Amino acid sequence: IQRYIVTKLGEDWIFLVLLGLTMALVSWSMDYASAKSLQAYKWMYGELKGNVALQYLAWVSYPIILVVFASLFCHLVSPQAIGSGIPELKTILRGVVLKEYLTLKAFVAKVIGLTAGLGSGMPIGKEYKYLSIYLSIYLSNSAHVQDLLVCACAVGVATCFAAPVGGVLFSIEVTSTYFAVRNYWRGYFAATFSAFIFRVLSVWNKDSVTITALFRTNFRMDFPFDLQELPAFAIIGISCGFLGAFFVYLNRQVVLIMRRPTALTRFLTKHRLIYPGAVTLIIASFTFPPGFGQFMAGELMPRECINSLFDNFTWTKIWGSPAPPGLGRSAAWLHPQVSVFVILLLFFVMKFWMSAVSTTMPVPSGAFMPVFILAGAAFGRLVGEIMATLFPNGILFDGIVYQILPGGYAVIGAAAMTGAVTHTVSTAVICFELTGQISHILPMMVAVILANMVAQCLQPSLYDSIIQVKK
Amino acid sequence: IQRYIVTKLGEDWIFLVLLGLTMALVSWSMDYASAKSLQAYKWMYGELKGNVALQYLAWVSYPIILVVFASLFCHLVSPQAIGSGIPELKTILRGVVLKEYLTLKAFVAKVIGLTAGLGSGMPIGKEYKYLSIYLSIYLSNSAHVQDLLVCACAVGVATCFAAPVGGVLFSIEVTSTYFAVRNYWRGYFAATFSAFIFRVLSVWNKDSVTITALFRTNFRMDFPFDLQELPAFAIIGISCGFLGAFFVYLNRQVVLIMRRPTALTRFLTKHRLIYPGAVTLIIASFTFPPGFGQFMAGELMPRECINSLFDNFTWTKIWGSPAPPGLGRSAAWLHPQVSVFVILLLFFVMKFWMSAVSTTMPVPSGAFMPVFILAGAAFGRLVGEIMATLFPNGILFDGIVYQILPGGYAVIGAAAMTGAVTHTVSTAVICFELTGQISHILPMMVAVILANMVAQCLQPSLYDSIIQVKK
Repeated sequence: IQRYIVTKLGEDWIFLVLLGLTMALVSWSMDYASAKSLQAYKWMYGELKGNVALQYLAWVSYPIILVVFASLFCHLVSPQAIGSGIPELKTILRGVVLKEYLTLKAFVAKVIGLTAGLGSGMPIGKEYKYLSIYLSIYLSNSAHVQDLLVCACAVGVATCFAAPVGGVLFSIEVTSTYFAVRNYWRGYFAATFSAFIFRVLSVWNKDSVTITALFRTNFRMDFPFDLQELPAFAIIGISCGFLGAFFVYLNRQVVLIMRRPTALTRFLTKHRLIYPGAVTLIIASFTFPPGFGQFMAGELMPRECINSLFDNFTWTKIWGSPAPPGLGRSAAWLHPQVSVFVILLLFFVMKFWMSAVSTTMPVPSGAFMPVFILAGAAFGRLVGEIMATLFPNGILFDGIVYQILPGGYAVIGAAAMTGAVTHTVSTAVICFELTGQISHILPMMVAVILANMVAQCLQPSLYDSIIQVKK
Repeated sequence: IQRYIVTKLGEDWIFLVLLGLTMALVSWSMDYASAKSLQAYKWMYGELKGNVALQYLAWVSYPIILVVFASLFCHLVSPQAIGSGIPELKTILRGVVLKEYLTLKAFVAKVIGLTAGLGSGMPIGKEYKYLSIYLSIYLSNSAHVQDLLVCACAVGVATCFAAPVGGVLFSIEVTSTYFAVRNYWRGYFAATFSAFIFRVLSVWNKDSVTITALFRTNFRMDFPFDLQELPAFAIIGISCGFLGAFFVYLNRQVVLIMRRPTALTRFLTKHRLIYPGAVTLIIASFTFPPGFGQFMAGELMPRECINSLFDNFTWTKIWGSPAPPGLGRSAAWLHPQVSVFVILLLFFVMKFWMSAVSTTMPVPSGAFMPVFILAGAAFGRLVGEIMATLFPNGILFDGIVYQILPGGYAVIGAAAMTGAVTHTVSTAVICFELTGQISHILPMMVAVILANMVAQCLQPSLYDSIIQVKK
């Protein structure tokens, strides 16, 4: 028996290491390819400066081509690759066998489709959980799917956000109702290993100088916030709860409308590529920087958005004055004529409906984590900037002046919004790992819990909602 | 049915809030009382400066009185209050009913005994889990003990270290084998609430200026470590694994020797107060600052030790030169004649056996978390200082010079050592929350996982070992 245990254990380690390694490689290459694609997109747009018509054509056609390609590819190779994968995962965990869901074809379709989608700059989320699950089943060659799923899901989240702890917790919350603690430990091992390899690859490729958080923030550590700011954090939490529930409702309504047998939907089902193309056209037209995009920081790609929303400046203070050094891409938020509030509000409203709509496109997409980090961060930042305007000299308490940090509000908003939509608390942990700062832990936990309380009373989680609709 | 659910939910909230609130109050008052006691201890010792004999008498008698009092009080009121409580908890979870374990008497004995023990400056750990469990059972008046225990345990850890996330995870890892995810969410709620109240109380009492981490570190954020330091972190992890397993072995041996029917043990069982008194006498004599204590920073109380071990200086660099500003209590580590390495090593060895022995004293004590944070941090710091001596100018990589941060090594050592002794991974999360910095996440996860791998191969966890011995 002892020899059996030893071999079993040995296999287990090897399996977890292999899973972490391959998943890190896959996710890193996808990141790399989509980043290059975005670079090409921006380069093309930049080169055409001077001719607005041509610029618009380039700005709109590039994502349309990629999204239509992704949609077509998935349709031809494996329609199972469409969507996020968590709803299917939950269904599998409940014991239902989904035919043809975990096949090599679907894997390839997912990889290609997701890379193309991410490279188009559309509000589409990284979603590596499916890939990871496929790999784990392929590698382990085992029937214990249930045991593997949480590990695999954790590895997926970990390579997505370089967040091993948050990845494990998120996977547990999302997939299980009862959880075996022995898997917990395996999940940690695999997730840490893959996150580590993922980060080493980017250091080796000189994307980043050393291993740090993905969206590192740089808030002051000494007195990050004051107790008197807590009501504002609570307001963010409660509002995000309502907004998250509203998003789930909106998403379901869009799907249901598309399902209803009208002339339009019949036409769209016949010509499958028109729907994603049209959605992309509308979204890209809205974000076109010289047009409406200038009022919603349209020129920023998702990653730049997050970095700039989490930055350390107070935009209402620097608005109108010459840009301080180190502002970087955040300059896109400072329109010479329009107030920062209007831009943030527009950005938030636009991203909100855009993500509700783009989640329904027939392409592989996660469509919520980065998107929600985006919408939530914009909302939090909005509250933060309002606070900074209300208390321009900071809050005086006990002889110490606490300056308001709008970036901190943005981080809290992001965590609360994702928490509300997915009905999880561990988004707070993911946010800590993403930003590399844990200074806002208590207000963030308060906001996330409040958001969860509100959202759970109003609507099911996004995954459960999708499962219900798909039934 | 709906009305029933609403009432049920209402009760649940109220219960969790009440639990968090009372537990925060209890733990805060215990902290306050023991801090005052330590202050009185140090004041007495300081006032007697000049007369070494009197000083020694005061240094030794004060903890003896308190420990003997704690031991006597527990013995008279409720012998069930002795020890840490997690082993009993695990037994209860497995379905065994321990008579007279969860009574008001035991609760009072635990509170008084623990406060006295903590106030004596002995290496005794805060252990609030029992209290929290008693309170939760008292407040809920419910039969669902199993469901409550994880929540209660999480609240205990959260109020101990102001670490809500880590508290929940640690409780899950320590108490459960299968875990219901719905309790996860309740644990978070209660733990966050209690940690929040706990921190607010200390702000209100002006212990701390604002709500931040308990042992806040201040490492540089930009490049906290380089990839090439990773082997050192791995060495810390593996060594801590071996040391942790050795500690469990040592602790069991001490208990077994005390159990063997020799003349000495018969004498000690008859006169119950002699054993704790003798142990305290020996430990206090070793730490006496003008005597041997000067070679092991004996004058520092546990909390000061942790703060100074996590500080931002490189002791080998400042040793011998005049103390830089802001050094504070860390000066105790810099002996004019003896090298920093020797002091750290002595401190580590001393604390190691002292905690293995003091865990066996018949007083209520956790005896591992702070103690292990101590021993582990000292070990990590030792490795860090060695690294800083080997690479005095830092590590050059890609044009950037990475200075070695011995404080970061100390944090990693603390997490790895506690992880190895308790067989948990979530000590890493507790450490992040304790220090308020997450910059070392990847090396810390690597070290903790390695420590766990080694320790799990060699010995059971400390709790399981105690359960086995008590059988």
